[in-house]
Amino acid sequence: MTIDLDALYIDLHRHPELSFQETRTAGVITRELDALGLEFEEGVGRTGVVTVIRNGSGPVVWLRADTDGLPVEEQTGLAYASTARGVDPAGTDVPVMHACGHDMHVTALLGALEKLQATREEWSGTVVAVFQPAEEYGAGAQAMIADGVLDRYPRPDIVLGQHLTPLPAGTIGVRPGTQMAASDGLTVRLLGRGGHGSRPHSTIDPVVMAAATVMRLQTVVSREIDPREMAVVTVGSIHAGLKNNIIPAEAKLELSLRYPDDDARADVLARVERIVRAEAAASGAEEEPVITTDHTLPPTINDPAATAKLTAAFDRAFGDGTVVDPGMFTGSEDVSWFAREAGVPLVYWFWGGVDPQQYADAVAAGTVARDIPTNHSPFFAPILHPTIERGVDALTVAAREFLA
Amino acid sequence: MTIDLDALYIDLHRHPELSFQETRTAGVITRELDALGLEFEEGVGRTGVVTVIRNGSGPVVWLRADTDGLPVEEQTGLAYASTARGVDPAGTDVPVMHACGHDMHVTALLGALEKLQATREEWSGTVVAVFQPAEEYGAGAQAMIADGVLDRYPRPDIVLGQHLTPLPAGTIGVRPGTQMAASDGLTVRLLGRGGHGSRPHSTIDPVVMAAATVMRLQTVVSREIDPREMAVVTVGSIHAGLKNNIIPAEAKLELSLRYPDDDARADVLARVERIVRAEAAASGAEEEPVITTDHTLPPTINDPAATAKLTAAFDRAFGDGTVVDPGMFTGSEDVSWFAREAGVPLVYWFWGGVDPQQYADAVAAGTVARDIPTNHSPFFAPILHPTIERGVDALTVAAREFLA
Amino acid sequence: MTIDLDALYIDLHRHPELSFQETRTAGVITRELDALGLEFEEGVGRTGVVTVIRNGSGPVVWLRADTDGLPVEEQTGLAYASTARGVDPAGTDVPVMHACGHDMHVTALLGALEKLQATREEWSGTVVAVFQPAEEYGAGAQAMIADGVLDRYPRPDIVLGQHLTPLPAGTIGVRPGTQMAASDGLTVRLLGRGGHGSRPHSTIDPVVMAAATVMRLQTVVSREIDPREMAVVTVGSIHAGLKNNIIPAEAKLELSLRYPDDDARADVLARVERIVRAEAAASGAEEEPVITTDHTLPPTINDPAATAKLTAAFDRAFGDGTVVDPGMFTGSEDVSWFAREAGVPLVYWFWGGVDPQQYADAVAAGTVARDIPTNHSPFFAPILHPTIERGVDALTVAAREFLA
Amino acid sequence: MTIDLDALYIDLHRHPELSFQETRTAGVITRELDALGLEFEEGVGRTGVVTVIRNGSGPVVWLRADTDGLPVEEQTGLAYASTARGVDPAGTDVPVMHACGHDMHVTALLGALEKLQATREEWSGTVVAVFQPAEEYGAGAQAMIADGVLDRYPRPDIVLGQHLTPLPAGTIGVRPGTQMAASDGLTVRLLGRGGHGSRPHSTIDPVVMAAATVMRLQTVVSREIDPREMAVVTVGSIHAGLKNNIIPAEAKLELSLRYPDDDARADVLARVERIVRAEAAASGAEEEPVITTDHTLPPTINDPAATAKLTAAFDRAFGDGTVVDPGMFTGSEDVSWFAREAGVPLVYWFWGGVDPQQYADAVAAGTVARDIPTNHSPFFAPILHPTIERGVDALTVAAREFLA
Repeated sequence: MTIDLDALYIDLHRHPELSFQETRTAGVITRELDALGLEFEEGVGRTGVVTVIRNGSGPVVWLRADTDGLPVEEQTGLAYASTARGVDPAGTDVPVMHACGHDMHVTALLGALEKLQATREEWSGTVVAVFQPAEEYGAGAQAMIADGVLDRYPRPDIVLGQHLTPLPAGTIGVRPGTQMAASDGLTVRLLGRGGHGSRPHSTIDPVVMAAATVMRLQTVVSREIDPREMAVVTVGSIHAGLKNNIIPAEAKLELSLRYPDDDARADVLARVERIVRAEAAASGAEEEPVITTDHTLPPTINDPAATAKLTAAFDRAFGDGTVVDPGMFTGSEDVSWFAREAGVPLVYWFWGGVDPQQYADAVAAGTVARDIPTNHSPFFAPILHPTIERGVDALTVAAREFLA
Repeated sequence: MTIDLDALYIDLHRHPELSFQETRTAGVITRELDALGLEFEEGVGRTGVVTVIRNGSGPVVWLRADTDGLPVEEQTGLAYASTARGVDPAGTDVPVMHACGHDMHVTALLGALEKLQATREEWSGTVVAVFQPAEEYGAGAQAMIADGVLDRYPRPDIVLGQHLTPLPAGTIGVRPGTQMAASDGLTVRLLGRGGHGSRPHSTIDPVVMAAATVMRLQTVVSREIDPREMAVVTVGSIHAGLKNNIIPAEAKLELSLRYPDDDARADVLARVERIVRAEAAASGAEEEPVITTDHTLPPTINDPAATAKLTAAFDRAFGDGTVVDPGMFTGSEDVSWFAREAGVPLVYWFWGGVDPQQYADAVAAGTVARDIPTNHSPFFAPILHPTIERGVDALTVAAREFLA
Repeated sequence: MTIDLDALYIDLHRHPELSFQETRTAGVITRELDALGLEFEEGVGRTGVVTVIRNGSGPVVWLRADTDGLPVEEQTGLAYASTARGVDPAGTDVPVMHACGHDMHVTALLGALEKLQATREEWSGTVVAVFQPAEEYGAGAQAMIADGVLDRYPRPDIVLGQHLTPLPAGTIGVRPGTQMAASDGLTVRLLGRGGHGSRPHSTIDPVVMAAATVMRLQTVVSREIDPREMAVVTVGSIHAGLKNNIIPAEAKLELSLRYPDDDARADVLARVERIVRAEAAASGAEEEPVITTDHTLPPTINDPAATAKLTAAFDRAFGDGTVVDPGMFTGSEDVSWFAREAGVPLVYWFWGGVDPQQYADAVAAGTVARDIPTNHSPFFAPILHPTIERGVDALTVAAREFLA
Repeated sequence: MTIDLDALYIDLHRHPELSFQETRTAGVITRELDALGLEFEEGVGRTGVVTVIRNGSGPVVWLRADTDGLPVEEQTGLAYASTARGVDPAGTDVPVMHACGHDMHVTALLGALEKLQATREEWSGTVVAVFQPAEEYGAGAQAMIADGVLDRYPRPDIVLGQHLTPLPAGTIGVRPGTQMAASDGLTVRLLGRGGHGSRPHSTIDPVVMAAATVMRLQTVVSREIDPREMAVVTVGSIHAGLKNNIIPAEAKLELSLRYPDDDARADVLARVERIVRAEAAASGAEEEPVITTDHTLPPTINDPAATAKLTAAFDRAFGDGTVVDPGMFTGSEDVSWFAREAGVPLVYWFWGGVDPQQYADAVAAGTVARDIPTNHSPFFAPILHPTIERGVDALTVAAREFLA
């Protein structure tokens, strides 16, 4: 290989950057693209990079990798552990770590581009590689789309992507249908009337209004959704009041909602809004609650036909048993925006980065949950081999399967 | 006296009757009225009795005693304890006891009528004695009014009444303003949609709707009423469902509400209705809840001027210190209907029936709550003397105070 | 065939019997077994029937059909609709209907026995046919086991059974793993202290205790169970109090819990008990709540290997596409007790009874939920053909697959 | 008078100071004490001032005035309105106003000292004047006691004080028994376990724990306290969480509790703690909640005998009808600490500062609540006359009543 993927990965790992600040990372990517003789564009969606390999007629396959790190202080003890720091949107100085494996995503995509470039005579069509920023904010894909990425480059016939996960290295996890949940973040302002803590009857107490709302919201999942379906209604934050003896005028709730698909989204959102408005009415609120949507992440839905085709290709390439069904994840991703906006299929799979022996021992001891660090953990530390090779090959095999 | 009041009281105590079944009691009353040479009418408001003493020009004073017993099994161990039984409105055979002292009320009123009759030359005006049934159902006064009691007899210039209470015998308790609370009994039907217990999402669960409503109703008293005001919102019964694995179609709540006056009634009723309707809406109910009023008892409000006048009269008649302020009772009475319908003042007082030494000992020992049986207790057992005398005299003094 | 299956089904349908009262049904079954020359035993588990076909060495296959009807008033309008009535355990006279298809279960098993008897030369081993009563009470299987059914007859190597369902006639639905949920029915007595509705402070209000408990129980499903797992916590009934102005001394809740497996059962039961006890403590209850288990239904878990084997056999016998994955049902069954107690595999499948054209039309119109009556509906009316044939053949094919 | 009370009041009103920052105010006070020839001590309890008039043998009477202003922006439009600013304990620059009338309290006490000094020959005994800081924080009285005020000066035989209130100027409001409520401020930390918003089952959700606790706390007042008694349980602030998709590890509640006396305090505190602990248990919390008391204000209980004596003295001095029963206030005061610590009687009364004609008009129009600004309002603006005179005279009459 032209690119030294081990060195590349270690360099990226040492130098993680927060969302929409991935400028050094973009520089590393473009340096390697340059070395591969590929043209590219920087600054797509603020800090994204796009490159295109045009190779005759045939389908257009998009390969996507996300590039940002997280405000986590690395505790892996690795020789190449991050000591980087950054400034978050609130202006706070924070440690930064590639705790979600996006450094491996970038490494694998660059490796795959080299392989595809080296085998141009074996396939025809167009490969678009999308290095997307700010996945951790759920904002990067939409930023690239707003910046015209779907119009300025060949539109995809399929969008492919992959995510590192705590499965044994070598293993690939993918399922048809919903692979990751949809999610909305809502802010709810409940408007009461403030007053002295000793005179509740002169107020409309927003603390009680908020408490009753939180309790009632539990019934969406417990009573209103088919018990066999996945749905989550989390109130992640609740804030009202300054001191004990003043009843405040309002309360603020922040909700995170999760669902398997768009129908469930519409359904759950309607139920949440119904409850919020009714609980304000139960308090005799004089003003309607204010509900705003802070972000919307679509479900990550794998096209069944394309997933079946790809699974078969992985089995052929890597041997039977390589591909497992990892189940649906209740976490969310923004990769889907590319496929949804373009109206084309998506396949998004997971690949393992854990030492297989360590994994097998943990399974035998029943200590997987304790001993195998997951994404976002300060101990998240994929082994380099065969993780890098499998990531490169999975992307290459997948791209080739959908090119001519 | 013509009437043997001790024997009369013991006879009544031995033979209590349930509400609207006071026929033997009416027979006893009319036998004594006959003996006093007074004309009377039976069957007023089903089982009530009314007699009138006309004695020249002057004010019309109504004296009211209620006549019914309670479905309580007497455990006083008295020689003249009740062993009576009756059939309640549900058709159940139940024990019956004068556990609220209405036997003493009747005895005192008959004694007072004899005294007033014997002293006709000392006063002028009209005395109407009302032996009212079914106070325990909160229905007897309204039944008599519906039967025309206010039109068929001289309309009152004032309504007077008294109730036995566990104060020391000899003591009278009365206060101006609200003496006993107003009360409403409501039935609330919460309408959901039934279904199988394993499929809550196909239902609108009325059990959860009812539970949320009960919890929210707590906030009327805890947050919406001035902490210095008396208000009670009790859900005395809740019923829904037949078995564990069927979600029923509706739930029924029965509420008892208490307030000091009519303004508070309107206010609390509006708050309760607001919450019930909003909680149904929070459940997504397809039908509005059905709220019905089962009974309404007005506040027992003592006219301040008349109460002051009467308190002074009691002090003169019985000595300073006889009259105490017993505080407001959260229990309710239907005597007020007579005064409210007629638009005239009411004074309703309490008089004690407990052995004074026993009471003093209990106070000293701090065991009043434990040792002194209250109204409706199976151990409620007033001493005969001076309870009877004080009851007779209090009514006589009071009537004379407001007659010419 | 010796047996006229159409006439048999219609006769059973006309004469449904309530659980543990299936004596006429047992008579019909034994008459047909007699006609087939099979020996049998009646009264196993009160009203069950067992017969055995011994046919040389080989595996022992149990075939189970349940026999009871439901207290539902038939509204199908069929010529052979039930007009039967019965007396339920509470002593109430109720209508009775085969609204769950157990008449078809019995018909198919008798037909299968005739086929197996007629083809004895083609297989060897032992068939035990179990006509189980009282499935609707979740009590019949355990009654038969308590009566020694596993000891008095050849112990199974596998247990097989089938249930009629609103799929198109001809279709078979089965899945490996959990096919139907486990379930427990609990009664919870919450002990407070009663008193007058106007004096809540002298009581420990069990209505509020119950309401708070119901609201808190919602959080088991909404917060404590993996959103991807099935769990149901239904409070199907809540009862406390006699009238609005008396605060009762206790409240009774009846809960129906559902889970996919035994681990989830233990987990959910522990969480429910934790909440019930803590909410009683929050009320300051002086006595612990009393929690009793009314019934326990295990999960209906299909052995994966046996299910795969059987699915292949159905495909061969009936053509590809006959077998569909119907998903897990949140309803429950007691058939598993036989396999669990014996420690052997179970396969339990569903077969369709709906006119295929009607079903296709409803699917096209999006009106399946409205137009296709489900089990327990008063309109549940399977078509006779090919429902009977497919039921007979499915049992026969299945039995033969596991016999030698 | 030596002191120009109008000018003094206006000067104080123009220059309010926040709690424990009353240094300019202390300077004004000591300047006037100096002018009266009285010795004094500054810095008692940080910013308090104490002076003593020793005048032969006889009772020791303490007269107390509080001195601090509030962080309120004055909107009275008065020529002498405050434009002062201060820095609050959080370091924030805030407007400051004498919105509670403490400027009038100081003025009246200085005027009374002059009068008492001028009439030394008419009385004997000792007057101790206490200018207390930081009443608004509920901390000044305890700070002075901690600084030895009860030991370094003649111990009181009685403690007297007065508060300006929106009654008509000239009127005095006082009642025997509880005049102002007791109060505690509590902080409750509810400890759960944090995690990702999409994985509630891996957490112990403190937001739900807090909401359930708030709802349950409502039942203390609604169910557990005699409806005729005053009690308030306010949750004035609730805080948990940073963003919608992270379930936080803990929640914080701040409670303000109010009661009429110490028995009720102990009772309500025990109930609140019981509920907080049980709701944490209902959530399966692994750590006990942490409950801390931020401040404790005793009930302001007027000694009945002393209050009767004082009421009679006021009637004699100012004419019948001057003294009204203002009812109990649910607000709280720290003046009681002096009397409680010393074990002597307290009388604390209110005096009016509203233009009587304006007040009468508002009563007639039913607009008192809207038109008469209350304490802590930015529009609170007592008229100078006869407010100052009545304040001076009330203190003087009261002191004389309890001196020899």
